[in-house]
Amino acid sequence: MQINLISDTVTKPTKGMLKAMMEAEVGDDVFKSDPTVNKLQHKIAEMFGMEDALFFPSGTMANQTAIKIHTHHGDKMFCDKYAHVYNYEGGGAAANSGVTSHLIDGQRGTFTAKQLQEAVLGGRSDIHTPYARLVALENTTNKGGGTCWDFEEILKIRKVCTTNNLALHLDGARLFNALVAKKESPEQYGEVFDTISICLSKGLGAPVGSLLIGSKSKIEQALRVRKIFGGAMRQVGYLAAAGIYALDNHIDRLAIDHTRAKIIGAALQNCALVKNVEPIETNIVIFNVIDSINEQDFISRLNDAGIGLISMGQGKLRMVTHLDFKEEMLESLVHTIEHI
Amino acid sequence: MQINLISDTVTKPTKGMLKAMMEAEVGDDVFKSDPTVNKLQHKIAEMFGMEDALFFPSGTMANQTAIKIHTHHGDKMFCDKYAHVYNYEGGGAAANSGVTSHLIDGQRGTFTAKQLQEAVLGGRSDIHTPYARLVALENTTNKGGGTCWDFEEILKIRKVCTTNNLALHLDGARLFNALVAKKESPEQYGEVFDTISICLSKGLGAPVGSLLIGSKSKIEQALRVRKIFGGAMRQVGYLAAAGIYALDNHIDRLAIDHTRAKIIGAALQNCALVKNVEPIETNIVIFNVIDSINEQDFISRLNDAGIGLISMGQGKLRMVTHLDFKEEMLESLVHTIEHI
Amino acid sequence: MQINLISDTVTKPTKGMLKAMMEAEVGDDVFKSDPTVNKLQHKIAEMFGMEDALFFPSGTMANQTAIKIHTHHGDKMFCDKYAHVYNYEGGGAAANSGVTSHLIDGQRGTFTAKQLQEAVLGGRSDIHTPYARLVALENTTNKGGGTCWDFEEILKIRKVCTTNNLALHLDGARLFNALVAKKESPEQYGEVFDTISICLSKGLGAPVGSLLIGSKSKIEQALRVRKIFGGAMRQVGYLAAAGIYALDNHIDRLAIDHTRAKIIGAALQNCALVKNVEPIETNIVIFNVIDSINEQDFISRLNDAGIGLISMGQGKLRMVTHLDFKEEMLESLVHTIEHI
Amino acid sequence: MQINLISDTVTKPTKGMLKAMMEAEVGDDVFKSDPTVNKLQHKIAEMFGMEDALFFPSGTMANQTAIKIHTHHGDKMFCDKYAHVYNYEGGGAAANSGVTSHLIDGQRGTFTAKQLQEAVLGGRSDIHTPYARLVALENTTNKGGGTCWDFEEILKIRKVCTTNNLALHLDGARLFNALVAKKESPEQYGEVFDTISICLSKGLGAPVGSLLIGSKSKIEQALRVRKIFGGAMRQVGYLAAAGIYALDNHIDRLAIDHTRAKIIGAALQNCALVKNVEPIETNIVIFNVIDSINEQDFISRLNDAGIGLISMGQGKLRMVTHLDFKEEMLESLVHTIEHI
Repeated sequence: MQINLISDTVTKPTKGMLKAMMEAEVGDDVFKSDPTVNKLQHKIAEMFGMEDALFFPSGTMANQTAIKIHTHHGDKMFCDKYAHVYNYEGGGAAANSGVTSHLIDGQRGTFTAKQLQEAVLGGRSDIHTPYARLVALENTTNKGGGTCWDFEEILKIRKVCTTNNLALHLDGARLFNALVAKKESPEQYGEVFDTISICLSKGLGAPVGSLLIGSKSKIEQALRVRKIFGGAMRQVGYLAAAGIYALDNHIDRLAIDHTRAKIIGAALQNCALVKNVEPIETNIVIFNVIDSINEQDFISRLNDAGIGLISMGQGKLRMVTHLDFKEEMLESLVHTIEHI
Repeated sequence: MQINLISDTVTKPTKGMLKAMMEAEVGDDVFKSDPTVNKLQHKIAEMFGMEDALFFPSGTMANQTAIKIHTHHGDKMFCDKYAHVYNYEGGGAAANSGVTSHLIDGQRGTFTAKQLQEAVLGGRSDIHTPYARLVALENTTNKGGGTCWDFEEILKIRKVCTTNNLALHLDGARLFNALVAKKESPEQYGEVFDTISICLSKGLGAPVGSLLIGSKSKIEQALRVRKIFGGAMRQVGYLAAAGIYALDNHIDRLAIDHTRAKIIGAALQNCALVKNVEPIETNIVIFNVIDSINEQDFISRLNDAGIGLISMGQGKLRMVTHLDFKEEMLESLVHTIEHI
Repeated sequence: MQINLISDTVTKPTKGMLKAMMEAEVGDDVFKSDPTVNKLQHKIAEMFGMEDALFFPSGTMANQTAIKIHTHHGDKMFCDKYAHVYNYEGGGAAANSGVTSHLIDGQRGTFTAKQLQEAVLGGRSDIHTPYARLVALENTTNKGGGTCWDFEEILKIRKVCTTNNLALHLDGARLFNALVAKKESPEQYGEVFDTISICLSKGLGAPVGSLLIGSKSKIEQALRVRKIFGGAMRQVGYLAAAGIYALDNHIDRLAIDHTRAKIIGAALQNCALVKNVEPIETNIVIFNVIDSINEQDFISRLNDAGIGLISMGQGKLRMVTHLDFKEEMLESLVHTIEHI
Repeated sequence: MQINLISDTVTKPTKGMLKAMMEAEVGDDVFKSDPTVNKLQHKIAEMFGMEDALFFPSGTMANQTAIKIHTHHGDKMFCDKYAHVYNYEGGGAAANSGVTSHLIDGQRGTFTAKQLQEAVLGGRSDIHTPYARLVALENTTNKGGGTCWDFEEILKIRKVCTTNNLALHLDGARLFNALVAKKESPEQYGEVFDTISICLSKGLGAPVGSLLIGSKSKIEQALRVRKIFGGAMRQVGYLAAAGIYALDNHIDRLAIDHTRAKIIGAALQNCALVKNVEPIETNIVIFNVIDSINEQDFISRLNDAGIGLISMGQGKLRMVTHLDFKEEMLESLVHTIEHI
């Protein structure tokens, strides 16, 4: 049995999703005449109570577009030192938007309004430092092991942003995991953020695509930026149909992924080769092996048992549960961990 | 009957293509494990006798990536004043790569090796002008009405490039139209150009996607650039499958589009409201209406008859034939033109 | 006798200017506490009836800063195909600001409001083309041989800009030559343009420096951009003092440079080796040698006679009169031309 | 008595320096024909045993140019979290070169080869992270309070760079302070670094200017970049003459500034209002006031006594000694501190 836990991006469409794709009505989305894309964009905007949305080939492009529309070239954004936009988007903030990342030293990818306030005060009103325009949060945090933000803290951060004339973007690649885990609603996020990116191809199980959600004027700007990056596609309704299906069918079941992640965590905790397991809030399990064994050896042993996982660097290993990780796989995995 | 001739990008997959899409074997292409994408990339590289290829969400991104990998930020590229890379990619050469476009004043989107040579000599060895690194051709030319390049001239341009240490990129959005019209082969292009972009969603009829073809090292660079632009997609084999199907089934039939374009041209030529029709070499028909009638009025009249076309600005109107433009539509269109 | 006519940038300070420089009161201009810089900035702003001004190490940086503060990264500006900002600033519009130059095909570096209007209409309201934000004029035109703009046409261009929400920048590297030649005033330019750059080191004879003039808010933005480019200097009042001296003493005498340029032009006109001389309006003389002799040979012959001049490419040669080109040099030069 | 210790950039030329400036032979440096600039560039290159050098209007532009010539747009550089290139150059690395700064968490602006090695390993061979090309050190460290690097550590860092194909740049704005304090030679730095920037207007007391030193090919690239930024100046030999004078006369005397800084430090240490004084190695004194008094109040009190100093943020205050800070000022300052 092959058990691929390297990421929740590896899922393949279910039969139902594939059927929805096949039956999609399409058109040329560059001319905005793909009805399925339009439907998806409208649907997600409504879910979040925001004005408009735009479909993107990737979460990276949705985030990079958000950075570009909220800043002027040469400005600065604040984000956690673990932020995906800083660590895993190919240096795009600097390359695409000339934006300097001011890193905040948070906890597992989250930081406090107080930390933001201090960072804002640190570099103000001085031509030596770039002008601050944007704060980018990520929920759940990828490098932070699926940690969810405290919504009360987000509200405080919103206040700091408003006071200091900073836009607030949410990298919501795994936001639905947070909503399910914390019993929160899309609307409460839509009220607080200027833009939100949502990924359809992680926990939600669609093959390709992300959405950027925001005001009419911001999405209009995003349309131009998407064109410059080369993200305008033609009859892309086939992919959008998968996204609609995912929103209709795959949100609530994320709770199952979370439960399974905790079961894996418990098994690892008991494993003599594992030094520690980080707290598990959603579908990501991060752990360290004991010093006496080599992390690559450990990965190889699991690979030999048909289990895929990845290293996050600095001794951290990661497993991610998802739609294609089934009950029998969980049993097999736990058994393997117990006997390694 | 609705007859949409605004572009050859408006086509929808045939039944065969849709079947191929839905049966595609897929994987996570960010990890390079989508077998269908890999197959398509391998197939097109082989067709052109080049080392490697990469799938992109759009031709714009394929071209923009080519510009970025052939230049250093701040350099200069030569292209025709009609070039798509200059006119229709959102200013991407400057925005994405800091590249200045040195425009050559050619004929319907094509220029001569002599013109290039003069342009090269014009701005050399002087710190006041950007460093020249790249020449970009487009075949067939979009704004030039589907004009095909003379391959002998391309060979001469290649020599100028080699002598002057300039890379040579081909925007081949409609290259297969040129190959069919001029009875040329992909291999002869693969030998001459450093990189070639190919569009699957124009004449070839796939819903989404372009390919960039080049050497192993260039495609390796392209992979990084695609990541920064946000063009790395997940289970995108569904779209790649359409591309494979298109390459297998839709190349030769482009001759039909060309014939139909010429028939339309002849009809327009005879129409009292039409001042002149530009020479028709492939599937694009560009014409001007007579001065006494308004171009928007003319478009509206045709729209009322169910016919879609677009203005290219400066009084030029454009119709493009394609896979979804059928024989009965041709007859209806010609009839409409004759009776307008 | 050495006669250097390659540019009006080659002048050295007069005794009076040097004295003014060495007596300058200075301070750290990064902290805005250099009194001489402040005085110069205030003086030029007053002359043009504008709110504020900023000192720059070069005209290129003043222009590049103007481009950056008037545009967003990825936008488009309109300028003549001869424009210095496009041809001689190292590709900076694209490199520094991601700005695409939309070239207008004017006459000797000037164009009409009608041409601008057509260019504006050509690329509007379409995500395929970059957003237009700026029009840049140059007066006098360098590549256009010192041609002066017709102020009435500038007023019409201003209207097109206002209607279309475009900023209007003037590259006034040699504006004082135009003011003297056309008996115009700085104030009338200050009323029409959003920003104006002025060069102190060409006809005005200062060793180094340019100024950007505009509204308080634009100059505040310019201050930040200058910092990013690295143009903030310390005790730079020594150079600013030369600028003040130049504004006080070297404007009216530009008429002498203009007269001398016309005398050179007449001599060249009568020279058998010269095919034609372009119209001379200010201090620049552009001419072509006859086809039967090589342009580099012609330059060499004059060089041997102690006369410096440069090629503008495409067979055009250029001589520029200036503060250090004296009456006896004119006589010697005319004699040389007559006997070549 | 006014005592300005906000920075060592506030110095004004001595009589001797001003005389040297006044007598400078100048020319148009854009055409490379300013003999004094050429002499200065040659002199500094020789001092460091490197091939060539280039004069810049500021240290920011010298550093920004170094970043641009060592990287491709979109790459990554490593520097300390205190680095001037990251903190005080207006976000230029991102804005001018699209470069992401990977910050190393060092000690007072210096880090170890081991830390660099770990940072290099952290983000390798993965398209999600930008490509690493450059390491930038700063000696002495500005934000680190004038701390000098251990040259043995620099040699180890050089090895990590060589192994990992990284260029190594030194921001030597205050390098001469380090050379004097540690009894090191320019040549030993010239051997280790790919490029070095030197500031003439800090401790050395020239009014304006920095130099970038490197190989012939790197300086040739720098010349083009300087043009794009707008840093090419005309008869700038007046400023270069001050630089030559400074190199001839103002290096050894830096020891006096260092002694005075230590005396100030001792006085502050004994002041009841001061919590702690950071170690003083060169001419920068950084200290914190006690929690019970407000830092702005403390600055105001000293201002009232005619003493200028600045806040570095987060409660840190800074005084910098320099050429214009004389013995009687030191006595007055110490007296003021003792009686505050």
